[in-house]
Amino acid sequence: MRIARIEHAGGIDHAVAEAEGYRLIEDVYADEIRCLDRWVPGAEARLLAPVEPRTVVGMAHNTGPGDRLLPPQAFLKPSRSVIGPGEPVPVAADLGLVHAEAEVAVVIGRAGTVLGYTVANDVTGRDLQAQDSLWTQAKGQRGFTPLGPWIETDLEPAGAAVGLAVDDEVAPAADTGQLARGVAEVVAWVSGFLPLGPGDVILTGAPGASLEIRPGQQVTASVAGIGELVNPVVEGVHGRRTERGAA
Amino acid sequence: MRIARIEHAGGIDHAVAEAEGYRLIEDVYADEIRCLDRWVPGAEARLLAPVEPRTVVGMAHNTGPGDRLLPPQAFLKPSRSVIGPGEPVPVAADLGLVHAEAEVAVVIGRAGTVLGYTVANDVTGRDLQAQDSLWTQAKGQRGFTPLGPWIETDLEPAGAAVGLAVDDEVAPAADTGQLARGVAEVVAWVSGFLPLGPGDVILTGAPGASLEIRPGQQVTASVAGIGELVNPVVEGVHGRRTERGAA
Repeated sequence: MRIARIEHAGGIDHAVAEAEGYRLIEDVYADEIRCLDRWVPGAEARLLAPVEPRTVVGMAHNTGPGDRLLPPQAFLKPSRSVIGPGEPVPVAADLGLVHAEAEVAVVIGRAGTVLGYTVANDVTGRDLQAQDSLWTQAKGQRGFTPLGPWIETDLEPAGAAVGLAVDDEVAPAADTGQLARGVAEVVAWVSGFLPLGPGDVILTGAPGASLEIRPGQQVTASVAGIGELVNPVVEGVHGRRTERGAA
Repeated sequence: MRIARIEHAGGIDHAVAEAEGYRLIEDVYADEIRCLDRWVPGAEARLLAPVEPRTVVGMAHNTGPGDRLLPPQAFLKPSRSVIGPGEPVPVAADLGLVHAEAEVAVVIGRAGTVLGYTVANDVTGRDLQAQDSLWTQAKGQRGFTPLGPWIETDLEPAGAAVGLAVDDEVAPAADTGQLARGVAEVVAWVSGFLPLGPGDVILTGAPGASLEIRPGQQVTASVAGIGELVNPVVEGVHGRRTERGAA
């Protein structure tokens, strides 16, 4: 089942995505998903980020098997850095090198269960990352966490193909089977120490290469069995602050 | 004005704290705070954490003037690690050394304004911090962010005394004037790159010494002009996960 979050004439709702449109859901975090008798045609809906998390946590150095030699490490991204499909990723000129990373994102449901999976683009400022050992500036800028296009509840995440493209540049094929720690192991490890709740998101790590993004380009992250998450990259106005924080 | 968040027979509400009780607020993030004609006696209310943030961001190494030589750095804490006055801080035996830190916390209001200030205890696992360069495990455990007892809207944060005590052990006197970067500068710097919204919280750094906390103790963080935030420390059951994440 595909669960989207849509904006339509009646407001913002979670809805089951069907071929011709969306069937609204009563409560996406209920024990059982029940649909309302309300239908929104596809043309009258805009896809939003599939959740509004209170916590976005990602796995550090969870790529190839060599990372297995390191202890697991997690980072946090600001929950308000989440944007939806089609929303622009702002990249300010003074940020230096900025990369896109395509990942499977786990969406937490009620009472610590996994509701499903979506696609994440873990946008990361590489130059900032080299200068800030805590990664907060590198990972935490406005618009740096595209999520979508919807939540797939039936995905088998253990061997899902993960793709990344920036305009015509396509990253080599990769899949979650290459992750040093697989999706299920990541969920168990993170939820072991960190408080998670409904709508929270775990970025499980990028099994493939990251690609540079610059204003004017379009970035597409994809997971086989979920779909494609496409975002334009635009000129950002915020960027890095001076040391004294002058605005 | 003191704005508390209380649990009472009618539910959970923000309310203005007065001498004998609480006057409920219509919308704490409105342009102007308006009170409802509803009053809850003090004995019938329980103080909760004054906000449910979507983002909790803290300043790293923002203590004495020497830290001014380093570029500013921020870390994130999971928003669900926030607890209120009187709620227990769980400390699992396998976490090693755990410290309390008393700080002024800035509470963000509507449209990036500062709503007011509360007291934060930035609980930190020192042994974990030494082993995890991203600090997520050290700062992100359940219950590691006590906030309260309420929001003071009228505080002058530039020279506020900040106190910390664990049972009978009292940290030396300290105040926000000692911070390498003051409260106003911290707000400007963080909001320059990181997306913040109503109810979000910035921990501005501990000007004073941190103190070890152990199960069975009681920790009190205080800021002159706001009040005291008191929490018991209890035996935690979660603690550090094994590398394989076995629960």
